[in-house]
Amino acid sequence: MYVFITFAPLKFITMKIALAQLNYYIGNFESNAKKIISTARKAKENGADLVVFSELSVCGYCPDDLLYRTDFIDGCNASVENIIAECADIPIIIGAPLSNVSGKGKQLFNAALFIANGDVKSQCKTVLPDEGVVDEHRYFEPSDKFDLINLNGVKIALTVGGDVVDYPMDMLAKLNPDFIVNISAVAYAHDDNHLSDLSQVAKKYGLPLLNVNQVGANTNLIYEGRSIAFNAEGRVIAECKSFEEDLQYVETKSFKSAGEELRKMDTTESIFSAITLGLRDYFSKMNFKTAVLGLSGGIDSAVVLALAVNALGSENVHSILMPTCYSSSHSVDDSLEMLKRTKSSYHIIPIEDLRNAFGTAMAEAFEGTKPGLAEENIQARLRGSILMAYSNKFGNILLNTSNKSEEAVGYSTLYGDMCGSLSLLGDVYKTEVYRLARYINEHCGNIIPQHIIDKAPSAELRPDQKDQDSLPPYDILDGILNCYLEGNMTADEIKAKGFDAETVDFVLKLVKRVEYKRFQAPPILKISSCPFGHSQSVPLVAKY
Amino acid sequence: MYVFITFAPLKFITMKIALAQLNYYIGNFESNAKKIISTARKAKENGADLVVFSELSVCGYCPDDLLYRTDFIDGCNASVENIIAECADIPIIIGAPLSNVSGKGKQLFNAALFIANGDVKSQCKTVLPDEGVVDEHRYFEPSDKFDLINLNGVKIALTVGGDVVDYPMDMLAKLNPDFIVNISAVAYAHDDNHLSDLSQVAKKYGLPLLNVNQVGANTNLIYEGRSIAFNAEGRVIAECKSFEEDLQYVETKSFKSAGEELRKMDTTESIFSAITLGLRDYFSKMNFKTAVLGLSGGIDSAVVLALAVNALGSENVHSILMPTCYSSSHSVDDSLEMLKRTKSSYHIIPIEDLRNAFGTAMAEAFEGTKPGLAEENIQARLRGSILMAYSNKFGNILLNTSNKSEEAVGYSTLYGDMCGSLSLLGDVYKTEVYRLARYINEHCGNIIPQHIIDKAPSAELRPDQKDQDSLPPYDILDGILNCYLEGNMTADEIKAKGFDAETVDFVLKLVKRVEYKRFQAPPILKISSCPFGHSQSVPLVAKY
Repeated sequence: MYVFITFAPLKFITMKIALAQLNYYIGNFESNAKKIISTARKAKENGADLVVFSELSVCGYCPDDLLYRTDFIDGCNASVENIIAECADIPIIIGAPLSNVSGKGKQLFNAALFIANGDVKSQCKTVLPDEGVVDEHRYFEPSDKFDLINLNGVKIALTVGGDVVDYPMDMLAKLNPDFIVNISAVAYAHDDNHLSDLSQVAKKYGLPLLNVNQVGANTNLIYEGRSIAFNAEGRVIAECKSFEEDLQYVETKSFKSAGEELRKMDTTESIFSAITLGLRDYFSKMNFKTAVLGLSGGIDSAVVLALAVNALGSENVHSILMPTCYSSSHSVDDSLEMLKRTKSSYHIIPIEDLRNAFGTAMAEAFEGTKPGLAEENIQARLRGSILMAYSNKFGNILLNTSNKSEEAVGYSTLYGDMCGSLSLLGDVYKTEVYRLARYINEHCGNIIPQHIIDKAPSAELRPDQKDQDSLPPYDILDGILNCYLEGNMTADEIKAKGFDAETVDFVLKLVKRVEYKRFQAPPILKISSCPFGHSQSVPLVAKY
Repeated sequence: MYVFITFAPLKFITMKIALAQLNYYIGNFESNAKKIISTARKAKENGADLVVFSELSVCGYCPDDLLYRTDFIDGCNASVENIIAECADIPIIIGAPLSNVSGKGKQLFNAALFIANGDVKSQCKTVLPDEGVVDEHRYFEPSDKFDLINLNGVKIALTVGGDVVDYPMDMLAKLNPDFIVNISAVAYAHDDNHLSDLSQVAKKYGLPLLNVNQVGANTNLIYEGRSIAFNAEGRVIAECKSFEEDLQYVETKSFKSAGEELRKMDTTESIFSAITLGLRDYFSKMNFKTAVLGLSGGIDSAVVLALAVNALGSENVHSILMPTCYSSSHSVDDSLEMLKRTKSSYHIIPIEDLRNAFGTAMAEAFEGTKPGLAEENIQARLRGSILMAYSNKFGNILLNTSNKSEEAVGYSTLYGDMCGSLSLLGDVYKTEVYRLARYINEHCGNIIPQHIIDKAPSAELRPDQKDQDSLPPYDILDGILNCYLEGNMTADEIKAKGFDAETVDFVLKLVKRVEYKRFQAPPILKISSCPFGHSQSVPLVAKY
């Protein structure tokens, strides 16, 4: 005999919830609060009953070691007080560091604050990420309290970041919530799956799920936004834009609508948008206006020029061509053609005389030696010095043009082409750089001359040099690197995938040997799950 | 009425315990295992009943992201098997990553393995450090099991790292151990207090405490060693040497001896020894032999030369003097005098012609501008390029000569004097650099000419330039920096200590503004509790 238990239907007062997806500036409490308050007011005018902001929205995610500074925490607290006072008439959820008054463990929690009807309730994060680019264990105490929040009789499971896909959500599900609200700040990676994971969570618990994610970039970390609402079947019922601020509304009555399948964005398009936002925010938040780069005639610097012109405006990007006798004639011609198409300014500074002067200066010390790597690197370092001199003189910020394949195997000169304030392509494999070039030509006007895309890549540091003299073909190289870095495979596992054993050993040896170069690399815009570069402990883009 | 409870006296079979303080090489399982096995044999020959090695001794502390690699963990496990087989006849305690087979949480524990009588028992770390230079939460699951180990009836509380000063030791103390053994790897800092803390622990529980610490350096982190044994009153009954390998024995019968007060080492002596070990191990573990540095005639490069000559031998250190027209005559004279005293080789490469050639190359781009910072930095970058060219040509490793005061306020040129493979003084304030110079002259022969110590510091990048034209006097500057960095004080708190308000604001503004320069700095030997530089996720010094 089957017993059918009938639950009371969800006693839903119809509710309208605003997903407020904003671009925060770390430590700029004034501008963050202003955005939060004005967005809350706008949402209220549009009939919202609750406005949800993202993780650590009050200070911007993630302030890293600034969280150790008492004046920074004081600033957070004052800002929260201000927001509470200004949003007295509209329930909101914001993210902020919250003091741990227990006297045990770390001094802060990573909290979601539910502010409604003159009351503040907090729900703090339990599962603190520590394996990727941010280590929250360094700053926050994990919470062990699991409660629902209640808005006019509606019970909401409120979670922060990864808690929603982990056991804290199990604890909250037992308390029988009506739906789930998660606030997050997930650093962009083209190979990330957090949206499918969220869809699965909604399905698993049979509960609608609303996720508000941060948008914008802070130094090397880019946040896509794409805040989203799923129905209880894990299908999409509302979605904010990717890579820009947005404000979308979800009505609880729409929880019953059929919804749509989660879309998969085109990888190259998404990388293009991510880098564009990353570059734009780096400049705007650091208060920079103009950029400079070395334009070699190769694919990497061409793509950087295209990205920079698109993100900053062609009038704000200056190129410098620095040919030597090893530069092929097409290098300068192709560059000039591209500059013509992008309508941006440039200087040609041949380095032949400087190279000779350097040779003279080193003559005694180098007596009896044959030209080799040292002489090749001198050219790269003279170019780096010229670019930095221009940057120091006119305030143009130097954009680094190295790609991930080069960074991985050290096919680059420390203090030479590794110079720069920000690396745009340092997390983009060479094969993907080509795809970016073709995407740019399709979508931003045909600005990269086809010859730059077609010709064989060369560093042009000695006569007739080609990348493939020193390295395996890029499709092989990138395949091996991808297995090793993103796939975390052993050499044996990579060989078992069909790559030539000798090539695998050669590549991995190079990767391990040049760790020291990458140690001193500029910040690299992260676009994959396994970027190079250190998770810096104090953010470069911060006002405090 | 008082009831006197009489406990049975400690049933001590007399035992001799070896404190094996060794210098491990991260990921070099073969050499680590060889050291462990031969030391265990030697200790057994000398009558030891138990030999204790330091934290993660099998792989060296700390392998960071190598712990994510399955082939690295396989290497650890094979090495542990080998050690167990080779040490069948002598009880030992080693440190190693241990697989977490529970299927919950991180895949590894940070374990102490007690290997005796054919049996292996593990005690894993609970309180994982995450605030300093190493983040163990990233790799290890905290343990929640607390048991004593038992060697022939003697009950030992075995702890790893910080567990001994935290609640895990409370849990173990309840189980009534006879004494405490802790294995650790504490990165050196001259302002560190872990030995006093250990003394307090012994006193608190009324138990003898033996601590075996790692010695040696891995990239930027230096381990002092100074393994120690305290009696139940927290007084020292045995102690290994500082900054070198050592093997000392403690007999349990000596637990009753009066012991000695914990000595405080002289700060400058200890910094000198730490840097010497750091530099020596960087070279030996990276398989480097010779060094190069730019010798300016100033105090920083003089101290670096002295440290390098002392650590590597004068025949292995090459200096390059690169004067311009702004260099005072004494700069070259003082340098030559020092080179004479240290009997080391050098080249003089004047950069005047190169500077002019650079000016010519930039003439068109710089037309109509006045000489300024850009031109000053050009000199520093030409010097950096010359040093790197020499390094590339002859394989000499470039030693960076910046100090912590400069690094803090950005009084340095990125890709110029900030070049280098390792920074010796980047965690040493300028005032301490002077103390180091005097210490060196007292203890290593009078090798630094007095005039270098006495003259006013200058970057010599423009006529009659002095550091104090741009910066507060170094004693003031260092005082403010020390409050801000090591003391983590707010601006208001620093001003309340009596520093001029305007100067404090000026200094802190500089510190915050030049974060981007430090981002690309070389690895800096850590000697304080608040070093600059990132905790790199993959060690530069590693064989794997």
